[in-house]
Amino acid sequence: MSDGVTRWRISCQRPIAYDIVEAPRLFDPGNRALISAGRIEGGRRFVVVDRNFARYHAEEIHEYFAHHGIAARIVRFPGGEENKSLERCLRILRELDAFPIHRRDEPIIAIGGGVLTDVVGFIASIYRRGVPHIKVPTTLMGYVDASVGIKTGINFDARKNRLGSFEPPLRVFLDKTLLTTLPRRHVLNGVGEIIKLAIIKDSKLFRLLEEHGARSIADAFQNPAGGQILDRAISGMLAELEPNLFEDDLSRRVDFGHSFSQELEARHPDRVLHGEAVLLDIAVSTLIARKRCLLSERDAERIFGVMDRLGIVLDTAVLDRELMWRSLLDRIEHRDGLQRVPVPDSIGGCVFLNDITRQEIDSSITALEARTRVQCEPALQR
Amino acid sequence: MSDGVTRWRISCQRPIAYDIVEAPRLFDPGNRALISAGRIEGGRRFVVVDRNFARYHAEEIHEYFAHHGIAARIVRFPGGEENKSLERCLRILRELDAFPIHRRDEPIIAIGGGVLTDVVGFIASIYRRGVPHIKVPTTLMGYVDASVGIKTGINFDARKNRLGSFEPPLRVFLDKTLLTTLPRRHVLNGVGEIIKLAIIKDSKLFRLLEEHGARSIADAFQNPAGGQILDRAISGMLAELEPNLFEDDLSRRVDFGHSFSQELEARHPDRVLHGEAVLLDIAVSTLIARKRCLLSERDAERIFGVMDRLGIVLDTAVLDRELMWRSLLDRIEHRDGLQRVPVPDSIGGCVFLNDITRQEIDSSITALEARTRVQCEPALQR
Repeated sequence: MSDGVTRWRISCQRPIAYDIVEAPRLFDPGNRALISAGRIEGGRRFVVVDRNFARYHAEEIHEYFAHHGIAARIVRFPGGEENKSLERCLRILRELDAFPIHRRDEPIIAIGGGVLTDVVGFIASIYRRGVPHIKVPTTLMGYVDASVGIKTGINFDARKNRLGSFEPPLRVFLDKTLLTTLPRRHVLNGVGEIIKLAIIKDSKLFRLLEEHGARSIADAFQNPAGGQILDRAISGMLAELEPNLFEDDLSRRVDFGHSFSQELEARHPDRVLHGEAVLLDIAVSTLIARKRCLLSERDAERIFGVMDRLGIVLDTAVLDRELMWRSLLDRIEHRDGLQRVPVPDSIGGCVFLNDITRQEIDSSITALEARTRVQCEPALQR
Repeated sequence: MSDGVTRWRISCQRPIAYDIVEAPRLFDPGNRALISAGRIEGGRRFVVVDRNFARYHAEEIHEYFAHHGIAARIVRFPGGEENKSLERCLRILRELDAFPIHRRDEPIIAIGGGVLTDVVGFIASIYRRGVPHIKVPTTLMGYVDASVGIKTGINFDARKNRLGSFEPPLRVFLDKTLLTTLPRRHVLNGVGEIIKLAIIKDSKLFRLLEEHGARSIADAFQNPAGGQILDRAISGMLAELEPNLFEDDLSRRVDFGHSFSQELEARHPDRVLHGEAVLLDIAVSTLIARKRCLLSERDAERIFGVMDRLGIVLDTAVLDRELMWRSLLDRIEHRDGLQRVPVPDSIGGCVFLNDITRQEIDSSITALEARTRVQCEPALQR
């Protein structure tokens, strides 16, 4: 029996394009960058701003839009993984719908960290089947990771990024000076993603971190070497993302550090930042690679060494063997039936594993706990 | 002052392609069409089936998957506009997440009418940032309209299709015999969209409706002329959709009948079917065009004449001047600042209006009410 006759084939090429623009002094009234994409005369903008960021910049932002005669509705969003929720998303959607905006020429503007741009990007992707949005990262995590790609998402029933979309922004504006008010913990949060990239694909970036990372963190990356690190991190990230924007290839090197940690984040949304979870995952993945002799002792020590040097302290108390195994099981569904776990085979290279066992995860966690415990013994800190 | 320097430009061409396949006897175990797109060996399928349709076909569908050794989770969905809701959507998402499926090779299967395929398409577009889905229309509305395009959506806060996405299906399977159990009212519901297409772009289709429409409706389009009407309607629909799949051009001829009616549907989800609302909108739009002398008296009478001949009775009691005006105001936001209302200027042609006044809508509604009242006077029915 015939399985059917194709009567119509629908096809098209959908062009995707967006610019990542370096725009210092973004909220200076003389700088029209932020409003230039969209209607100005009689224009309206729905703006979602991180609540902490707004403490320093709310007035400046209000005045910016007022100066240009644009009716802006500015909504404050409390950051943090616990607000990457459907409830928060719906609340913003209702405010948006009550405002409202034209469907195409009044882009939504998202000013904040990775959680905020993920949530607002998702809102933009589903409101009226998609309206344009602009991203302005105000955290290092946003700057080097969340804002430059096209992934959006919210957590759902305590499962991380379970709902989301691939939604290219209209534009991304990078203003490095916005990072200066960032607490150190949130600087280190973004550093987690930079370390990830350095390990799996960029030994030169890794050396920059070893040599200039500590200074750059102290300077919130405003120093020249810090700028070099950010540039290299973003370039490297985009080189990975651009040929595989919609993840047609599910073996992604940038998934390093994103295989065992998702359920930890979901369980402890108020305790573990995304970058911190990534670093825990990197540590476990590194020990798995080391145990399999895929990675030399020297390279493994460099990985742990750079974390130490940058002042990163892993919160190993949140490690949970069962949760981390369950994270991997979910990744198998997500990666279409295979584990596809990237682990480093050198500084600047990685391989994919498909046969990691529960026992391997457990013993790597045990090894990591032992390593951290040793470092914490006061006698050794002299 | 410079507005910023473009540092990176991300671009790609995203290929979009899907087939609309004529596949009679879709649930016959010998017909592998429905499972051929995706993993069979050890495969799983999440299937959402219209509750009414399931009354006749549930066992057949269960047996179909069992025969092929596929673990299918079959969820029943109560049709109707009132179930095009976020609550319903979340309930299905939870069932899906608990099932679960591979991200790429275990497509979700949607078997039902337009409401069902819109909701399931939306779920597919946001679950894990998008999983593939297959559509099997079981209503005429689904067959000629909802299933063949890429629009998905749910109502939100009583606003129609306020959340949604453009999500191309993996495949669409057309099995005309599934329409045979459809109640007459639901056949007429789909006819609304066929009439729409005929008026704005296809005078030959219009003549087919005049000559063979009544017979075809009585036969649930199983007769040869009925088949010809369906073919022509789908071809015409696709010819409009394909060059403008993502609605980059907001002046869409297929929006005929979709400018004044949205709030009526939202207000009366249990009383007005989508196609019925479209027909009310067509009637009002036709009278606006007639009053402006854009449309000849003869053509206007042919439009009302074909409705009469097909046994369509407009429920003018739901007409509401304020709601219809508000629908148009929302369309202005949706169509980026302009009304862009298509109205017929002949049988088979249309023009777009941007300056329709509240008064014009009101007087067209009054004229329509008078016309319907006259037709209902018993003395005239002899």
